[in-house]
Amino acid sequence: MPEIWVLRLGHRKSRDKRVSTHVGLVARAFGASGIIFSGEYDNQLLESLKKVVEKWGGPFQIIHEQNWKRVIKEKKNLGYLIVHLTMYGLNLPMIINEIRHKFYEERKNLLVIIGAEKVPGVVYELADYNVAIGNQPHSEVAALAVFLDWLFEGRELEREFKNAKLKIIPCKKGKKILKLSDNL
Amino acid sequence: MPEIWVLRLGHRKSRDKRVSTHVGLVARAFGASGIIFSGEYDNQLLESLKKVVEKWGGPFQIIHEQNWKRVIKEKKNLGYLIVHLTMYGLNLPMIINEIRHKFYEERKNLLVIIGAEKVPGVVYELADYNVAIGNQPHSEVAALAVFLDWLFEGRELEREFKNAKLKIIPCKKGKKILKLSDNL
Repeated sequence: MPEIWVLRLGHRKSRDKRVSTHVGLVARAFGASGIIFSGEYDNQLLESLKKVVEKWGGPFQIIHEQNWKRVIKEKKNLGYLIVHLTMYGLNLPMIINEIRHKFYEERKNLLVIIGAEKVPGVVYELADYNVAIGNQPHSEVAALAVFLDWLFEGRELEREFKNAKLKIIPCKKGKKILKLSDNL
Repeated sequence: MPEIWVLRLGHRKSRDKRVSTHVGLVARAFGASGIIFSGEYDNQLLESLKKVVEKWGGPFQIIHEQNWKRVIKEKKNLGYLIVHLTMYGLNLPMIINEIRHKFYEERKNLLVIIGAEKVPGVVYELADYNVAIGNQPHSEVAALAVFLDWLFEGRELEREFKNAKLKIIPCKKGKKILKLSDNL
């Protein structure tokens, strides 16, 4: 299967720590291969996500790269399809089949871009697709999750992660956690 | 159609402002009738969400209620189905058809509960369904969005909101906003 990378624009340590953490966790849980954080370097953010991968499995890569424009151009040169999630774009139901076709049939890797506050206009230009997860204001965390869920048609929710030390056994009430390693 | 209310547990002003805002925006954008915030009273949070409803339309109600246990019990007494989203629950694909049946066929209203950090054990007991949006750690924002998206099978993304002053016209590049009122 082709790869999906997520590029998170404009992270600010003071303001975005929790939302960016959610973005990273969603990228992993919903089947991306990795996430690239642009904006301020935030070691605590990167480390906390790496710890989740150690505990709950992967593979999932976590990277900081200051120059987001270079990331987009490099991925474009590598033939990635650039998908920018924005409330102003074409609504997901209008465009998902075309993206699925390029991903599954043409085997295109994807770079999925999500912004923090204000996204520079050039991102809209560099993107192959500007996609709205509904044309309403909500959340880049939700947008990323729903986009990946539609792309994978729900299969990502049943994915097994490799080298997990912990695994949840689904249950009706309470919590069942399987320890797969003593090294926790 | 039956109603869906969201109950957000344990909001802390200092720590959760942005994530709780995302939760509220997702509840509105993905078709809930309203959200009840429990935990610390946060006027700024409530007002910022009310402003979104004024601008982008509704109906959508925003309420603070300190006593979350009372909320759950009241809704239960009113015949609501209580759905608690938690990574420890039954995975969404295992259980969504049963919930859809109760919602669409039995016309049950839903109370969807999402926690902040640590959710008290009694919530698992009071819930009719503990539902995992994949049994992996990620985000209550994503969990809420994906749950509602599965329940509505994507139709919520094309919903029209009433009394909106602004409306986005989906487009391939850039931004098109329709002003439906001069009173902005």
